[in-house]
Amino acid sequence: MADAATYTDKGKPFERDMTYIPDRLRAGDEPADPLEGAYGADPDAPSWPVEPGRYRLVAAKACPWANRAIIVRNLLGLEDVISLGMPGPTHDARSWTFDLDPGGVDPVLGIERLQEAYFNRVPDYPRGITVPAIVEVETVKVVTNDFPWITHDFFFEWREHHRADAPDLWPADSREEMEAVMKRVFTEVNNGVYRCGFAGSQEAYDAAYERLFAALDWLEKRLTDRRYLMGEAITEADVRLFTTLARFDAVYHGHFKCNRNKLIEMPALWGYARDLFQTPGFGETIDFEQIKAHYYRVHTDVNPTGIVPQGPDESGWTTPHGRG
Amino acid sequence: MADAATYTDKGKPFERDMTYIPDRLRAGDEPADPLEGAYGADPDAPSWPVEPGRYRLVAAKACPWANRAIIVRNLLGLEDVISLGMPGPTHDARSWTFDLDPGGVDPVLGIERLQEAYFNRVPDYPRGITVPAIVEVETVKVVTNDFPWITHDFFFEWREHHRADAPDLWPADSREEMEAVMKRVFTEVNNGVYRCGFAGSQEAYDAAYERLFAALDWLEKRLTDRRYLMGEAITEADVRLFTTLARFDAVYHGHFKCNRNKLIEMPALWGYARDLFQTPGFGETIDFEQIKAHYYRVHTDVNPTGIVPQGPDESGWTTPHGRG
Repeated sequence: MADAATYTDKGKPFERDMTYIPDRLRAGDEPADPLEGAYGADPDAPSWPVEPGRYRLVAAKACPWANRAIIVRNLLGLEDVISLGMPGPTHDARSWTFDLDPGGVDPVLGIERLQEAYFNRVPDYPRGITVPAIVEVETVKVVTNDFPWITHDFFFEWREHHRADAPDLWPADSREEMEAVMKRVFTEVNNGVYRCGFAGSQEAYDAAYERLFAALDWLEKRLTDRRYLMGEAITEADVRLFTTLARFDAVYHGHFKCNRNKLIEMPALWGYARDLFQTPGFGETIDFEQIKAHYYRVHTDVNPTGIVPQGPDESGWTTPHGRG
Repeated sequence: MADAATYTDKGKPFERDMTYIPDRLRAGDEPADPLEGAYGADPDAPSWPVEPGRYRLVAAKACPWANRAIIVRNLLGLEDVISLGMPGPTHDARSWTFDLDPGGVDPVLGIERLQEAYFNRVPDYPRGITVPAIVEVETVKVVTNDFPWITHDFFFEWREHHRADAPDLWPADSREEMEAVMKRVFTEVNNGVYRCGFAGSQEAYDAAYERLFAALDWLEKRLTDRRYLMGEAITEADVRLFTTLARFDAVYHGHFKCNRNKLIEMPALWGYARDLFQTPGFGETIDFEQIKAHYYRVHTDVNPTGIVPQGPDESGWTTPHGRG
């Protein structure tokens, strides 16, 4: 997500800026998910109509928050109705850039820097130029970058466009428990690794490390007798956990000092992560080279040499997981 | 060893300065080891007499080169004839300091900074203030800091003072092979991890990584059908390899980006390392907290935050190794 020039704030714990452009994509006048208000949806957020071909998802493969949206788009079969633009793994202090595209320009939006689409929406947009972002193709304006709601709306609001056998990523009968699991996964794991890596003091780091591994131990136990987080079927909660696990040994373990152990040392979590990796829609979104390049080159205050490690050996991801 | 303020040299591979104060400790007028000339000994190096109580070994527990000397002193039973002074794990650009001792002063040498003993020997000594160093107690002068010869001479020249059941660390019948093994261990492993960690360019790092893991693969294979590097008994070669392996997961894996895999992922090397760790003379010299504090706090150009990771979990070191 972030795009600041420095990431650690000396003496201070890391705090993620959670203010986003809050707009929503909506199939009708009322929320398709009647429970969303109970889980933090902003009732005043402007809404935009669901419309095939109208929007482009901009999502770097390097970024875990963007990775979520790519996976959910795959799982639900939304590839033909929402196109995908992919910035390269590194960015400067100003913006993610379309440096992997011919001429360094996104072929649909016609821009070099994602920042342009933010400025088209809000001149001098003052916050981070983040991915994922939903951009209206015709106006090249960012509609929203409020990542938890992007995947929520892919499921609830774009239902008419899902493929026939799309998974039920938000099962109604376990919604309450799933929301609690997702909350803990977000605060303790998805964001927990950043809390370790961007800690501005030893004390902040030590506390962050304890929180992270307490949560991973809880997940290891939970996944010992469940194939997926909510039981026998993949849900949004699994997508959210997976994007952090996929990056764990590659970047969080070393670069962010989340190093009590590697993911491969936690049998249930490692089997679970491989199970998902080998499920269509997941593994093909993971590009370890882009992931490593992003973290090790962008966070120059953590890794001033900018050298990207060659390891770890990622060949284990395609080995039999023995689950299910 | 090193004590410079920066460790990486932008655009350049790491090159270790191997110029030391070359003096030797000698039991007699002639070398006790008749082969030493064939293995690089300087025939013009000044010599000092072996004499119980005359010298103090200054060796920080954090430093792998110093760790060698501590282990060999233990194995040979030289504790009563050569005393041991131990600087703390961190040092500034000038010197290792005796910050762990009461009042911050070495109780035998009466100095705060090891630099003082170097300056007593060579005013304005221009090179790194390194450990291990042999210091003459009465004059508080450094006799030598030439680390490969310090342990060599503990064995060959101090023989009269070894304990009765001291191991034969330099078996004559396999000397030639052992020297070749030690050479490869030094250039590719002991120094190889530094070549990765202090690489000043991606190219230098990439080359260093390949060399390091090629050597570790060779060692993994060698140790699959040998208990120790030279067969059924511990030799100096094992001491030299051990000090790097003991630091591998704690610092080299993450901090130096030696991260194809952890030591614990290489079954023969990991069993071998535990076997040595659990052998009297080895494990008690390892202080993971000091090791981590040294690398993560001293190399501020590699880890500018100075934050020391809490991991890895080192509890595996005392588990059964299944060898022997």
